[in-house]
Amino acid sequence: MLNFDYSIPTKVFFGKGKISVLPKQIKKYGTKVLLVYGGGSIKKNGLYDDIVNGLKKNSIEFWELSGVEPNPRITTVRKGVEICRKNKIDLVLAAGGGSSIDCSKAIAAAYYYEGDAWDIIKNPSKISKVLPIATVLTLAATGSEMDTFAVITDIDVNEKLGTGHPDMAPRFSILDPTYTFSVPQNQTASGTADIMSHTFEAYFSSTKEAFLQNRMAEAILKTCIKYGKIAIDDPKNYEARSNLMWASSLAINGLLSFGKDSNWVAHPMEHELSAYYDITYGVGLAILTPHWMKYILDDTTVDKFVEFGVNVWDIEKGADKYAIANAAIAKTRKYFVSLGIPTKLSEVGIDESKLEEMAKKSVRYGKIGSLKPIDHNDVLSIFKAAL
Amino acid sequence: MLNFDYSIPTKVFFGKGKISVLPKQIKKYGTKVLLVYGGGSIKKNGLYDDIVNGLKKNSIEFWELSGVEPNPRITTVRKGVEICRKNKIDLVLAAGGGSSIDCSKAIAAAYYYEGDAWDIIKNPSKISKVLPIATVLTLAATGSEMDTFAVITDIDVNEKLGTGHPDMAPRFSILDPTYTFSVPQNQTASGTADIMSHTFEAYFSSTKEAFLQNRMAEAILKTCIKYGKIAIDDPKNYEARSNLMWASSLAINGLLSFGKDSNWVAHPMEHELSAYYDITYGVGLAILTPHWMKYILDDTTVDKFVEFGVNVWDIEKGADKYAIANAAIAKTRKYFVSLGIPTKLSEVGIDESKLEEMAKKSVRYGKIGSLKPIDHNDVLSIFKAAL
Repeated sequence: MLNFDYSIPTKVFFGKGKISVLPKQIKKYGTKVLLVYGGGSIKKNGLYDDIVNGLKKNSIEFWELSGVEPNPRITTVRKGVEICRKNKIDLVLAAGGGSSIDCSKAIAAAYYYEGDAWDIIKNPSKISKVLPIATVLTLAATGSEMDTFAVITDIDVNEKLGTGHPDMAPRFSILDPTYTFSVPQNQTASGTADIMSHTFEAYFSSTKEAFLQNRMAEAILKTCIKYGKIAIDDPKNYEARSNLMWASSLAINGLLSFGKDSNWVAHPMEHELSAYYDITYGVGLAILTPHWMKYILDDTTVDKFVEFGVNVWDIEKGADKYAIANAAIAKTRKYFVSLGIPTKLSEVGIDESKLEEMAKKSVRYGKIGSLKPIDHNDVLSIFKAAL
Repeated sequence: MLNFDYSIPTKVFFGKGKISVLPKQIKKYGTKVLLVYGGGSIKKNGLYDDIVNGLKKNSIEFWELSGVEPNPRITTVRKGVEICRKNKIDLVLAAGGGSSIDCSKAIAAAYYYEGDAWDIIKNPSKISKVLPIATVLTLAATGSEMDTFAVITDIDVNEKLGTGHPDMAPRFSILDPTYTFSVPQNQTASGTADIMSHTFEAYFSSTKEAFLQNRMAEAILKTCIKYGKIAIDDPKNYEARSNLMWASSLAINGLLSFGKDSNWVAHPMEHELSAYYDITYGVGLAILTPHWMKYILDDTTVDKFVEFGVNVWDIEKGADKYAIANAAIAKTRKYFVSLGIPTKLSEVGIDESKLEEMAKKSVRYGKIGSLKPIDHNDVLSIFKAAL
């Protein structure tokens, strides 16, 4: 196990009706709030009213920034910063999924930065101070409700970049699974794929001796596999929605990666797809992942895939290693298909015209991946196989 | 999944050499420290020198309270409070296992309480404020390094009671597995049993739909089963010591119990054995647990034991439910035996003279256990079976 520093400061209020704690928790930080949300689903599912009523009853002033894009854009972040500065906001409250939360985090961090907001996305070391952030989650997916990262897109220059700072961890997050009852099938599917992808990034590491973390990762994968399908078939199933919601937070809050070498691989590849084609995050990840697995399977990685096959997919031990590994990869692909996710990049409007460019950009900081690092030629091969 | 509020504020610095962060972290809270430790093992394994050198170099004043008992006594807590008050201590630093940490927690909480320290042990609601606590762990066992509880004994009245407060969570804990290399076989064994017992308390719950938490609990159990034996056979095995150490913290910091009904059962029974006979915590738990399992096994609990047998002990599915359940219980007992732990209360000096009295006391607040609550007659039967 590698050395690590553990700190997960976000408080979580989990369960039906927990929205009631919102005003009291906000007041620990002030009385002026910027409410950040997306396309208006929170107005349909009742969350908007729940929030606004709570704020009004408790004399908390608020301003709104709505219309945050699925891949949140830097232009929207800039708008948010402006509102915050003009009105001396005390806390940025995201109500939604990862997009609204990431946008809020970037706003909160850019608030104290004198230059343009894009600077702190490109260069996290420019972040020195962050406005308090809180979230009310409506989608089990990115885990942004309990981590320190944000991913922001500048669509004009086809850049989708991640930034982060310890103070970008939300002070608190309210996780009420009933707010995800109305999440449509495709978003439930891509959200589940997203949780699994975060887990894969931690699981397929070169660090072999983090046994405990590996078993925890398998716990999350098994949870996704069991409940992703149930949540699609039975959207108001509280057991499924609550297990997925908590899995989304635990997959990426550090629990699975502390003590392990970490160098993400599917995400940097996917970021380029989204930056160029604005596709859904989880869908891109689900398309690429089985192809990446297949590509890196060799004598140095096969044991890890056997572990994955036996412990996660319940494949019988004792068979030929490669047979188990290939069966595990096939089951992974099949599972994503069962959720209704496409299996090819061409199905989401991607052709070969920009593969080379995207492949190069995905390794801009060097090789990606921990279990078996890959370069831009490898990425290009994976993109082509996924086409 | 039941509603829950998640908050785990303790920062953890994990790994070899992490003691170097100690002075800087202490200085966040002040410059006057009470160093609390046990029988002197920290002087043999080098930790005492590492701490003292760091404090001296950084002009941190310190006072010492040594000789904390394996089941820490209220008399020792009182001594600590006196030193703290006299010298206006800023932080209580425990160096050791659960005993030193629990003693430190009680000192830190009693510091601000005007009456006698035993009051806040008997009645946690009397705790209003707590001195900052930090720990350097030398034994993977109680998980006290990352939780909010302390167990203190008044041997004069045969009382061993637990108390707790959110502010009793250590501000930070340093977990360096190399400090556990010198832990002797019997303490490694009882520590492993202790971690497993905490996990069992969360695992054997009446809440059926916390799938994720159940898989996480199994991750910890598998870690203990794999590495407990290795650590005994090869005490300087870093992989084993690090996995056990991190398991000890995660088993009881809330991760496994959030969202589940919780009513501990083996611990309240064991507390009476320790209060009357001053036996080792983990040993008492390991003796009682298989007997308790056997006792509560019936048609209402068998499915849980099947889950336990298949997922933790790798027993083949499909066999008769009771066969799987009984095999799982037998494997649990056998595992404790393989660690060198006695299987009978009589082997640790307990006879039947006080069983009745202890059984009554163990249910003083009502029935104990979540999966199948038991009363004092049940406890008595379990004690007798374990004799």
